[in-house]
Amino acid sequence: MTRLVRKAACIGGGVIGGGWAARFVLSGHDVTIYDPHEEAQRKVGEVLVNAERAYAKLTMAPLPKRGRLNFAKTLEEAVADADWIQESVPERLDLKQKVHQQIDAAARPDALIGSSTSGLLPSDMQAGLRHPERMFVAHPFNPVYLLPLVELVGGAATSTQALDRAKADLAEIGMKGVAIEHEIEAFVADRLMEALWREALWLVKDGVATTGEIDDIMRYSFGLRWAQMGLFQTFQIAGGEAGMRHFLHQFGPALHWPWTKLTDVPELTEELIETIASQCDACSGELTVRDLERLRDDNLVAILQALKGGDNGRGWGAGKLLKEFEDWLWADRDERAGDLDLSGPLRLIETTVNPAWLDYNGHMTEFRYLQVLGETTDALLHLIGVDMDYVGTGGSYYTVETHIRHLGEARLGAPLYATCQVLSADEKRLHLFHRIHKGDGDAVIATGEHLLLHVEAGRAAPATASILDKLMPIAEAHARLDRPEGAGRRVGERR
Amino acid sequence: MTRLVRKAACIGGGVIGGGWAARFVLSGHDVTIYDPHEEAQRKVGEVLVNAERAYAKLTMAPLPKRGRLNFAKTLEEAVADADWIQESVPERLDLKQKVHQQIDAAARPDALIGSSTSGLLPSDMQAGLRHPERMFVAHPFNPVYLLPLVELVGGAATSTQALDRAKADLAEIGMKGVAIEHEIEAFVADRLMEALWREALWLVKDGVATTGEIDDIMRYSFGLRWAQMGLFQTFQIAGGEAGMRHFLHQFGPALHWPWTKLTDVPELTEELIETIASQCDACSGELTVRDLERLRDDNLVAILQALKGGDNGRGWGAGKLLKEFEDWLWADRDERAGDLDLSGPLRLIETTVNPAWLDYNGHMTEFRYLQVLGETTDALLHLIGVDMDYVGTGGSYYTVETHIRHLGEARLGAPLYATCQVLSADEKRLHLFHRIHKGDGDAVIATGEHLLLHVEAGRAAPATASILDKLMPIAEAHARLDRPEGAGRRVGERR
Repeated sequence: MTRLVRKAACIGGGVIGGGWAARFVLSGHDVTIYDPHEEAQRKVGEVLVNAERAYAKLTMAPLPKRGRLNFAKTLEEAVADADWIQESVPERLDLKQKVHQQIDAAARPDALIGSSTSGLLPSDMQAGLRHPERMFVAHPFNPVYLLPLVELVGGAATSTQALDRAKADLAEIGMKGVAIEHEIEAFVADRLMEALWREALWLVKDGVATTGEIDDIMRYSFGLRWAQMGLFQTFQIAGGEAGMRHFLHQFGPALHWPWTKLTDVPELTEELIETIASQCDACSGELTVRDLERLRDDNLVAILQALKGGDNGRGWGAGKLLKEFEDWLWADRDERAGDLDLSGPLRLIETTVNPAWLDYNGHMTEFRYLQVLGETTDALLHLIGVDMDYVGTGGSYYTVETHIRHLGEARLGAPLYATCQVLSADEKRLHLFHRIHKGDGDAVIATGEHLLLHVEAGRAAPATASILDKLMPIAEAHARLDRPEGAGRRVGERR
Repeated sequence: MTRLVRKAACIGGGVIGGGWAARFVLSGHDVTIYDPHEEAQRKVGEVLVNAERAYAKLTMAPLPKRGRLNFAKTLEEAVADADWIQESVPERLDLKQKVHQQIDAAARPDALIGSSTSGLLPSDMQAGLRHPERMFVAHPFNPVYLLPLVELVGGAATSTQALDRAKADLAEIGMKGVAIEHEIEAFVADRLMEALWREALWLVKDGVATTGEIDDIMRYSFGLRWAQMGLFQTFQIAGGEAGMRHFLHQFGPALHWPWTKLTDVPELTEELIETIASQCDACSGELTVRDLERLRDDNLVAILQALKGGDNGRGWGAGKLLKEFEDWLWADRDERAGDLDLSGPLRLIETTVNPAWLDYNGHMTEFRYLQVLGETTDALLHLIGVDMDYVGTGGSYYTVETHIRHLGEARLGAPLYATCQVLSADEKRLHLFHRIHKGDGDAVIATGEHLLLHVEAGRAAPATASILDKLMPIAEAHARLDRPEGAGRRVGERR
C-alpha cells in the first residue's frame, strides 16, 4: 500500500477549500493553504473542527496520524512541492485563469491541479498553461469532508492519465471521483440540482408551497430514495418486473404535460428573496446555521453508517465507499503499526459518542458499549491476521460469552478509547478483557470480558499457525500483567 | 388513544394500492380491496410480503395484530362500511371520475375518500359527487409502506375538516400528510422530480453521462443531503453564517446562466428509450427488479432508523416520524395489553435479523444481540410505567452489569422473539433474565442476564410506589418459576 498523495496545497480557504484541507489532513496528508483573506485561518479552523467532530463519529477504523496544516504567505510557496493542488477561489473566469497560470508556473510539472469550480469549463481555465495536461475540474460537494462525490471533468488538453491518477488519489481520502465525458457548463450534479431549484422557486413564488413544505415533501419522499439509488435505478424498480422500458413507455407522455414551468425562470426580485429567506428562518426556529450544520453532519454520518450495512452487509453506495475506505485504513494501520508495545493492554479503538448512540436518559445506550467492545475485539483479530481473506478460507473466531460492567456514563461527544488485555489463549480459546476509557485520562467507564472460540467451517477447531504465531507473543506478554479487577465476576456478585 | 380508521377500502390493487393496503393491515386496520384485474390477489400478496419483511426490520415497537385483508367482488361491497377509501386506478380522468361517482354513491357520507393520482386535479375528479367535501388527493410514494409522505390536495369543494381528519388518520399508519395550498397539476413532489428528470434525459441523450453515472452522482452527493434536510435548508446552511439571503444574492445570477436545457424537452424516441433502458440494465448486472426492491427497502429501513437517532436522539425528519409512530404503538400496546400472563417469562419483543445486523461471518453481530436484549429491558420498563414522562421527572433505571451467552446463530431474515424473566426485584434493584428465541419454536440462541439500579437524578434511589405496584406482582409470580440454566455464570465457567 503506497500513499499516492503526500502533500496537498489548497488555494483558497473558504468553506470548500477548508473542506478539502480537512479531508486531506484527516487522511494523513500534509496541507499548505494559501488564502490572502484576513479571516482565512479562522474559517478553515472552524471547518476543521466540524470535520474532526464528524470523522470521530463516522468511523472506528484507525485514521492515520493527522497531517500538518500550514498557511503559506504566497501561492508559489504553497504549491512548490505539492502532489495535488486544489484551487477553490471565487467563480470568476478571469480570476481562475490568473490563479491557474500562477499555479502552473510554480508547481512541479507532474503535480495534479484540480479546480473546485461548479460551472466553468476546464478548457477555458487551462488555456495558455505550460502543462495543461494535468489540470482538470474536481468539483466537490459541501460538506466536502463528508460527501464523497467529486465530478472530474477534463478540458481539451487534459490527459487521460491525469484523470486516472486523480481517481486513485481521491479514493485514498475516501472520495468517489466520477469522470464526466463531455465538458459542459455546470457539469452534471449542478444541472440536475439547478433544474429542480428553478422549479422550486416557481412553486414558492406562485404560493403553491412554502420552503418548509417543499423541504418536508423532499425528505419524506424522493430524498430517501435518491440517497441510496439515484433517479434511474429508482424508476427502473418502479416499472415493476417489466423494468425501465415499460416505465419509459408508461410515463413518457408526462414529458409533454404541463408538469414543469419549462419556458421561463422566475425573476429573483427582492420580494421573492425576502419570501424565501423568511420562510427558511421560520423553519429553523431557534437553531443557528452552526446548529444546523452539526445536525446535518450527524444525519449524514448516520446515513453513511446505515448504508455501510446495505447489500447484506457488503455496503451500498456511499456506505460501500466508507467500508472500502475503512478496510484501506485497517490495512494501512497494520503497515504503520510496526512493533507492538506489549508492556500493557493494547490501545486499539478511538471514537466519540455519537448522537445516534444516546438513549432516552441522554447517555450512551447499552448496546453501543458492546459495539465499541466488539470493534475492539475485531481490531485485535485484525492484528493477529483474522481478516476477510482468512474468513474466506472458512476460519474465524466466534464470541460465546460476554460480561459487561458499567462504571460511568458517557454523554454526547465524549471522546472514548478502548484497550484489550489478553487474559489467556490457547489453540482454540481466546479470553479477552477490554476497558473503555473516557477522555484522555485513565477513567474507565465500562469493561468487557469476552470468551471467543476459533472455528473452522462453523465448528470449534484450532487456529492456523500463522494466527497463533501472532497471538501467542501477545498472550505471553499479557500473562505478566495484573489480573484486572472485575474479571471473572458473576452478575450481581458483591465486591 | 382511539383509532380513527378502523376499516379501509382500496380501489385498485397494483403496486400503489397494494402498498396502501399493506400500510393499513400492518397498522391493525381491516382492508377490503376491489380490483377486477385477474392478477390482483397475486400482486397485492407480493407487495404485502415485501412490506412485512421491511416492517419486521423497521421497528421493534409492538405492531398491533394485523388487520384482515379481503377482496371484494364489487366496488360497492368494498366501500360500504369503510372509514377511509383510497382510489388507485390508472391515471385517466374519465376513468377516475367514473370510479369516484361509484364510490361516492356507495360509501357512508362521512367516509374519507383519497385519490392516489400523481397529477390530476381533485376539482375535476369531485365534480358531480353527492358529497364532494370529503374527497381529496392523497398522493403517496412508492414503496408506500416505507416512504411516509402523502401530498394532500383539496379540490374547490373539499372541506378543511376532511383534510384535517386525513392528516390525523395518516399519522396512525406512520405517514406524514402535507397539505398543499393550491391545486396545480402534478402537485409539488412530481413537479420537482419531473424538472430533474427532464434534465437527466437531456444529459443521457447528449451523451454527457450514462444513467449509472447520473445515479452515482446523485447518491454520492445531493441525494444524501435531501434525505434529511431537503433543498432549502441545505442551501440555507451553504450560505454560511449569512444564511439564505446571502446565498440567494450570491447564486441568483446562475438562474440566468445556461445551466439547464430550459426551453425544450427531449423527444422520447425508441432510440433514447433503448439507450436508457440498456444503461440501467448494465448497472444492475445480475440483480433482478425483485432483488433491487429488497435492497432498496433494506437501505430505506436503515436510513429511517439512522434518522431516528438524529437531533441528539430526538429523531430527525422521517426518523422523527418513525419515533413518534413507535411511541404511539407502545402506548397503544399498553392499552391493548390487558392482564399479563404471569405463568411464564413475558414475551416482549419480536423482530427479524436485519442486513445491517450481519457481521463478516454472515451472522447477526454481537452488539445487535444486546440491542434486542436492551429493547426487551425497555419493553419491561415501559410495562411497569417507566416511560418518557417518568424519565422527565428524573427517575429511571440504569443497567450496571450484563452477561450474555451465545448458544446459536442467527442469519439474515431469521425471525426472533425475546422473553423476560424477573429473577429478583426490590425498591432499587432489578435483576432480569432474557432469552432470545429463533423462529416460532423454543430454540434459544442467546440469553442475557442484567442487573439494573433505579436512579433519581442520577443517584441510586428507590423507585416510586406507582412503579413498584406494577413491578412487584410480576417479580412475585416469577419467583415461582425455575431458576434459568445459565443464570449467575462467570465467563468461561465450566458447565
